[in-house]
Amino acid sequence: MKLKELASLTDGEIIGPPQSDDIEITGVSGINEAKKGDITFVSSKKFIKDLPGCKASCVIVKEPVSDLDIIQLKVSNPYFAFAKLLEYFYIKPHKCIGISKDAFVSDKSKIATDVSIFPFSYISEGASVGTGTVIYPHVFIGENTIVGERCIIYPNVTLREGIKVGNRVIIHSGSVIGSDGFGYVFEKGRHYKIPQVGGVIVEDDVEIGSNVSIDRATTGNTIIGSGTKIDNLVQIGHNVKIGKNSIIIAQVAIGGSTEIGNYVTLAGQVGVADHAKIASETMIGAQSGIMGNVSKGVYSGSPAMPHREWLKASALFAKLPELYKKIRELEEKIKKLKGGN
Amino acid sequence: MKLKELASLTDGEIIGPPQSDDIEITGVSGINEAKKGDITFVSSKKFIKDLPGCKASCVIVKEPVSDLDIIQLKVSNPYFAFAKLLEYFYIKPHKCIGISKDAFVSDKSKIATDVSIFPFSYISEGASVGTGTVIYPHVFIGENTIVGERCIIYPNVTLREGIKVGNRVIIHSGSVIGSDGFGYVFEKGRHYKIPQVGGVIVEDDVEIGSNVSIDRATTGNTIIGSGTKIDNLVQIGHNVKIGKNSIIIAQVAIGGSTEIGNYVTLAGQVGVADHAKIASETMIGAQSGIMGNVSKGVYSGSPAMPHREWLKASALFAKLPELYKKIRELEEKIKKLKGGN
Amino acid sequence: MKLKELASLTDGEIIGPPQSDDIEITGVSGINEAKKGDITFVSSKKFIKDLPGCKASCVIVKEPVSDLDIIQLKVSNPYFAFAKLLEYFYIKPHKCIGISKDAFVSDKSKIATDVSIFPFSYISEGASVGTGTVIYPHVFIGENTIVGERCIIYPNVTLREGIKVGNRVIIHSGSVIGSDGFGYVFEKGRHYKIPQVGGVIVEDDVEIGSNVSIDRATTGNTIIGSGTKIDNLVQIGHNVKIGKNSIIIAQVAIGGSTEIGNYVTLAGQVGVADHAKIASETMIGAQSGIMGNVSKGVYSGSPAMPHREWLKASALFAKLPELYKKIRELEEKIKKLKGGN
Repeated sequence: MKLKELASLTDGEIIGPPQSDDIEITGVSGINEAKKGDITFVSSKKFIKDLPGCKASCVIVKEPVSDLDIIQLKVSNPYFAFAKLLEYFYIKPHKCIGISKDAFVSDKSKIATDVSIFPFSYISEGASVGTGTVIYPHVFIGENTIVGERCIIYPNVTLREGIKVGNRVIIHSGSVIGSDGFGYVFEKGRHYKIPQVGGVIVEDDVEIGSNVSIDRATTGNTIIGSGTKIDNLVQIGHNVKIGKNSIIIAQVAIGGSTEIGNYVTLAGQVGVADHAKIASETMIGAQSGIMGNVSKGVYSGSPAMPHREWLKASALFAKLPELYKKIRELEEKIKKLKGGN
Repeated sequence: MKLKELASLTDGEIIGPPQSDDIEITGVSGINEAKKGDITFVSSKKFIKDLPGCKASCVIVKEPVSDLDIIQLKVSNPYFAFAKLLEYFYIKPHKCIGISKDAFVSDKSKIATDVSIFPFSYISEGASVGTGTVIYPHVFIGENTIVGERCIIYPNVTLREGIKVGNRVIIHSGSVIGSDGFGYVFEKGRHYKIPQVGGVIVEDDVEIGSNVSIDRATTGNTIIGSGTKIDNLVQIGHNVKIGKNSIIIAQVAIGGSTEIGNYVTLAGQVGVADHAKIASETMIGAQSGIMGNVSKGVYSGSPAMPHREWLKASALFAKLPELYKKIRELEEKIKKLKGGN
Repeated sequence: MKLKELASLTDGEIIGPPQSDDIEITGVSGINEAKKGDITFVSSKKFIKDLPGCKASCVIVKEPVSDLDIIQLKVSNPYFAFAKLLEYFYIKPHKCIGISKDAFVSDKSKIATDVSIFPFSYISEGASVGTGTVIYPHVFIGENTIVGERCIIYPNVTLREGIKVGNRVIIHSGSVIGSDGFGYVFEKGRHYKIPQVGGVIVEDDVEIGSNVSIDRATTGNTIIGSGTKIDNLVQIGHNVKIGKNSIIIAQVAIGGSTEIGNYVTLAGQVGVADHAKIASETMIGAQSGIMGNVSKGVYSGSPAMPHREWLKASALFAKLPELYKKIRELEEKIKKLKGGN
């Protein structure tokens, strides 16, 4: 692949000696692993310092870097260009295998064209699978569950009954959509199960990581808004509603009936209590604990507070022994002053 | 379904105009999703304010609400009545499918009557499955594992060898019962595996969420007491003993050999160290960290302390910068006072 | 099994009356569950107090315990001797079942001799499985993935395409190796997926617990070093590199591109941010939060600090209300002193 073709693909401008247009690019890689023939990128200024030792034949940049031996490709969003090139070089289109004779597909299900259903997958009565979708081995699709078009459902995924999955949704291995919400009522000394008869709606372009649990609603639906991306091992309780294009990082837990807006980021291991509300465009720092209503902003801590306040307070936390000592010294000094009077 | 029949089912008293007895109820739903024909409920006084806009035809209450247009059904435990009605309206009895020819069932296993075993499930030698139990696809049941009566084992569950599961137990998808406990002994620079040769006992009426891990004991048994309910993505280490009717919320981790009493609640993301003991009827707040012996009470924080103390201390955490400033001012003032003397 | 044979197996010295050599040992168990005929052990001095009530016929010790009725077996590492005896008494060699006709094994895969492949497992094109390895039911092995010799892959494990697993690796049920790293670039109001085209290398003698997620690298490899042991429900992000013989306890989350040295211990529920570095032989306490570069040491807290400082600071956390009160008293006193002057 000639560099000028990649430049055209990424709307980029080549910065280098005249013959640069025609150099051959054979791979894409990170700045430290790049070898001759590779194209790499710098996503932020702090990585420019790593460039002198880099063996790549071309580096994607936002602003030209001076005094650099490597040919540069200037684009408006280097990380985006990198993503497009990875796709271009490495992603082979899925070869449709049709419906394996070793899968179980109910004759009361609806399977569109160009669908791949691998051996040992189970498609229940009333389920439907849209055009171009790939169902890997050991996937369970429950009764009346609808999976849209061009989805990828990786091995060992469970989609329980009555779930709606949109188009271009990716669900990674081990994830469970539609397990019963955790609901009991205490009566006569025991926990009586509240039937969980609602569903889950996963809108278009959602990606769900591996070993994620998303519970079905008690009544109504748990909803994951379009474009939202969920990392591994995340817990989403019954009747949760997440807006569009939010980012939920690994091991977050979201309690029942909580509402989360659009473009929200929950960093790793955040816990959100049940019946909370988080406004759109809010960011929550790793390991924070959230309750109640949260207006747009950046928060950290457990319980959470504005991030800047948390930075100051947590810096002083380590100084508590020193503070304690100072207070005792002050008490001594005052005692003496009083005595002196 | 006429309202008077629901009243009889829930031991309730109808409060409304004379013709209320004969209105038709066609569904059950939450207060905000309810539509005409639905019955809904208020579980606590704080939700009474939501009633005026509610479209339900009847609302289940504990105490009559005055000035309300909606017909009321007074019961002693509205949430319990709601649960019973959900069951009544929506839960269809499972239609037994027998043993699928596409499942693998060892001829040295014992399968009782009225058991459903779905395609692609694997039942090992010496295993047994009790009357009325449902085994969904992709379930693995190991050698000599015993599953009781009327259990539901959802898709992609793994029950390793030598596990005992009681009656009416529900295990959600992706959960693993009896993986090896995490035990190694350090010898000559490496971690030597301690064989985990014990088992797991899951008593009657336990429910286990999705993607839960419960490790087998080193020797002896890991025990989950009857009526205990476990949410999603929970980790239970080897030789843990949990009492009866306890509630373990999502993403809790319990270290090896820890003992937890009856009617204990561990809120989301709580961590309990190994060899700890938590007394019956104790409540632990979300994200808390527990070590050692914990007597009956309510605790929060990491490390945990009595909940009320934690509330006060954590309220002051955000004020640390202010405290710090005050101490410096005091130091200044005293310096001046001394100078003045 | 005569005690003298066990003594020879463990390089131990029998301490007891002359006939001790010939007593029969019939089982191995923990100190509290031991019954007549069992051998048990004390791993540390604090458990010596439990010995008087113990029913075992022999106890493995490091130093002889005086005034004890039970026969003792003195060894240099009692816990190690216990592990060897558990193995000796209870671990039966796996009986090779060959390749089940109910498994799907691509004719373009390479399966070595003495391999067990259980029903409903799926081995893709180009994959290879080494001598003596056991693949339980419902395992997925992706294209070109290599599994070494004498590995155990438990039910419902997913090994995606292009993964390398060394020799003697154990992977517990529900774990996913090689799910896509969590990488997106924000462009025109949405999160554009960065293809994750790298792999995962799991070196020799690694053990991976149940329901673990290990993501594949964006480019290059995520690496788990030889002898490292990973507990249940752990999250390991893309491009993470973990050294040799490290211990990662349950529910730890490690962010992308983080590097962890050799002989590191991360206790339960620790969170490590992306692009962090943890030096070899470091220990991190449970629930801690780690960012940036961490030099060799023991740390706790979120954000983490040296463990001793954290112990002091967190002990004072509960005293914040008292400190606050003292400061106000000091203010009052100073006000009075000033007035007095």
